Amino acid sequence: IEAEDQSRTRALVRDLHEADLADLIELLRADERVRLIELMGRTFDPLTFTELDESIRDELLEALPQQVIASAVRKLDTDDAVYLIGDLDEAEQREILSKVPRADRMALRRALDFPEYTAGRLMQTDFVAVPSFWSVGQTIDYMRTEKELPESFYEIYVVDPTFHLAGALPVSRVLRTPRDSVVSDIMDTADVSFTVADDQEDVAYKFEQYNLVSAPVLDEEGRLVGMLTIDDIVDVIQEEAEEDIHRLGGVGDEEITDPVWRTTRSRFTWLAVNMGTAILASWVISWFDATIDQMVALAILMPIVASMGGNAGTQTMTVAVRALATRDLGPLNAFRVIWRESVVGVINGVLFALIMGVLAILWFGNDGLGLVIGAAMIINMLAAALAGILIPLTLDWFDIDPAISSTVFVTTVTDVIGFFAFLGLAAVWLL
Amino acid sequence: IEAEDQSRTRALVRDLHEADLADLIELLRADERVRLIELMGRTFDPLTFTELDESIRDELLEALPQQVIASAVRKLDTDDAVYLIGDLDEAEQREILSKVPRADRMALRRALDFPEYTAGRLMQTDFVAVPSFWSVGQTIDYMRTEKELPESFYEIYVVDPTFHLAGALPVSRVLRTPRDSVVSDIMDTADVSFTVADDQEDVAYKFEQYNLVSAPVLDEEGRLVGMLTIDDIVDVIQEEAEEDIHRLGGVGDEEITDPVWRTTRSRFTWLAVNMGTAILASWVISWFDATIDQMVALAILMPIVASMGGNAGTQTMTVAVRALATRDLGPLNAFRVIWRESVVGVINGVLFALIMGVLAILWFGNDGLGLVIGAAMIINMLAAALAGILIPLTLDWFDIDPAISSTVFVTTVTDVIGFFAFLGLAAVWLL
Repeated sequence: IEAEDQSRTRALVRDLHEADLADLIELLRADERVRLIELMGRTFDPLTFTELDESIRDELLEALPQQVIASAVRKLDTDDAVYLIGDLDEAEQREILSKVPRADRMALRRALDFPEYTAGRLMQTDFVAVPSFWSVGQTIDYMRTEKELPESFYEIYVVDPTFHLAGALPVSRVLRTPRDSVVSDIMDTADVSFTVADDQEDVAYKFEQYNLVSAPVLDEEGRLVGMLTIDDIVDVIQEEAEEDIHRLGGVGDEEITDPVWRTTRSRFTWLAVNMGTAILASWVISWFDATIDQMVALAILMPIVASMGGNAGTQTMTVAVRALATRDLGPLNAFRVIWRESVVGVINGVLFALIMGVLAILWFGNDGLGLVIGAAMIINMLAAALAGILIPLTLDWFDIDPAISSTVFVTTVTDVIGFFAFLGLAAVWLL
Repeated sequence: IEAEDQSRTRALVRDLHEADLADLIELLRADERVRLIELMGRTFDPLTFTELDESIRDELLEALPQQVIASAVRKLDTDDAVYLIGDLDEAEQREILSKVPRADRMALRRALDFPEYTAGRLMQTDFVAVPSFWSVGQTIDYMRTEKELPESFYEIYVVDPTFHLAGALPVSRVLRTPRDSVVSDIMDTADVSFTVADDQEDVAYKFEQYNLVSAPVLDEEGRLVGMLTIDDIVDVIQEEAEEDIHRLGGVGDEEITDPVWRTTRSRFTWLAVNMGTAILASWVISWFDATIDQMVALAILMPIVASMGGNAGTQTMTVAVRALATRDLGPLNAFRVIWRESVVGVINGVLFALIMGVLAILWFGNDGLGLVIGAAMIINMLAAALAGILIPLTLDWFDIDPAISSTVFVTTVTDVIGFFAFLGLAAVWLL
């Protein structure tokens, strides 16, 4: 396909949706990517850029001539354009912006001034605003004649002469109301709005909680400056969920298309932390080397106690981290949940203590060993439940994302307590 | 607050959004929940039911008089009503439906016939459809006079006389076009549509991929029967992400409000599976009891090798499971990703082999032990990378959700290979 055959390439990719084209580009080799976009020329939809993985987008922005990027920025809605050039360094941004018409340039500059992950960055600055004294007919006529409106919108905002928000009006309601109704009589006044500095996580939470499709964004003085739409928020929701999954699994925000060295380095950090905690657990074992020397069965069974604790702790922690993220867990029900998890931990601890105790007796023919592993199991499962709930709550209390670091802390606790309880009880009771 | 003071209670909760009211209800005790809803009487918004956690909703549906539920069903949009009574058993559904007007009853029955987790269950059966020869003016006049339209909508569907879909028209475009334009000239024809049997996961994927806000649903014969809107899809996206996080953490679809016995039972299953794999790993250790007997340092260090492998495997697996869920990983790039993960595994394996080898030599003053732990580390990190990517790919190939069972398989592999490589090499080289 890539035999420089421009017309055939164009024919093949013409009917692809930009998101599918982006997926196709991700599958190509680096040099093929640039060639494909150059071959497509004017038929290349700049929206494709916004659908690419970050590392590939950055690579393409480096490789493509600035003229191509500037023309893409010109064609995109402001929110997409900001997303596209937001990662570039300032000098490059300035050069690209210099090739963009003046009005757009001002809007983009202002948007780029907002920190990443805020409503100001996510919003689009094109929206429809009308005064409250207009009639529905005037509103419709204005929309029919005005050219500079966004591609699609779901709400019209109602503003006073100083551009302070007075209310919002779903587009479908405008269509269903007689032309002579006055806007201020049919608008919603208590709608959710955001300010430019709001964190995107809070924005996503409210969109979800209140089933919003679009929402107005106000500046510090309460003036309407932009609009957020659900399609951008869906991406945020996905990103936040992906971030939690990745962090719980001990990886940063890597993509499957990242280069090897970046992946290796980011995972190295996490593995190094884990090695520290593993060595700590080994150190605890080393206190009991004389005990193990007298009874090798202890070395054989000790990973079971640690592993069961680790898994029970991970279960509690997963539920807790997720519930914190979706705000189902908070100060109001924390005590009830801690109590609940402790009860679950003790019940399962007793059950597995019985099972494992009997198995150990059958395996090694030593009743005392069964008793020790059973007791250690109950202790470690209760510790796991408490660690699994208290560690995420504590991290959250100190405004640290519990998804990042809970896993290390929880497994450290369950390893250390598991080995210590099992080997310690064995040293006291068996020898 | 709950001192049976109706007017004060009403005043306190009146201005709450239904989602916030649902959160409040979840925080109450079981008997308080019923009392609150009874106290609120007519001021209780039935949409609140749809925002509750499943276990609490089921409990309330049991406790409240059927009359209250039937009146809630009457007031809700079809998709919300189906969601509300979908979990009840058939006899209860029939009784509630018998208290609902005939037209609604038919629509609800039909929707309940679609299996759970399909587009047919999610869709709402109220939508706006117009013939393609109408003008924009006729369309607007129809919407102004017709009463039975959904609360809000973002697209109007264009159908032929047999109700086959011809195209779709964003509401904002209707507003911006002169009254005399003909619908068929301004509609989009290539829009995404779904059939009633489509899985909700596919639906969510397409909404995301193509940035949809609403989409038509067709029956088996291609006739338009319903409409999906993004607010319902956002819930699906959240649920699917939550499911992945929970499954990776070894918990089912539990909610933080589930009763203790249910949580205990569902976690027990997973812990039992984990105990099986832990015993398998212990069995591997038991092959080398003579080796450990001669050198206790092996028992002290062996958890480090297993733990590093487990973490490296979890990292790879997390990325793979997530990439499979978002369809960033597929047959087209599987080999490239397998290769990439292997390289990352070997590089980090060599790095940690060096670090851990030196530490072991310093700790136990035994050069051979350093060599053994280093070699075992490289072997296990490579095994971890391969298991982390191949196990999810294989499960996915057999249409099993990789999030459910990858964790067990991966840690089994890294435990078994970690212990075997370390103790086996020690038995051969050191003794």
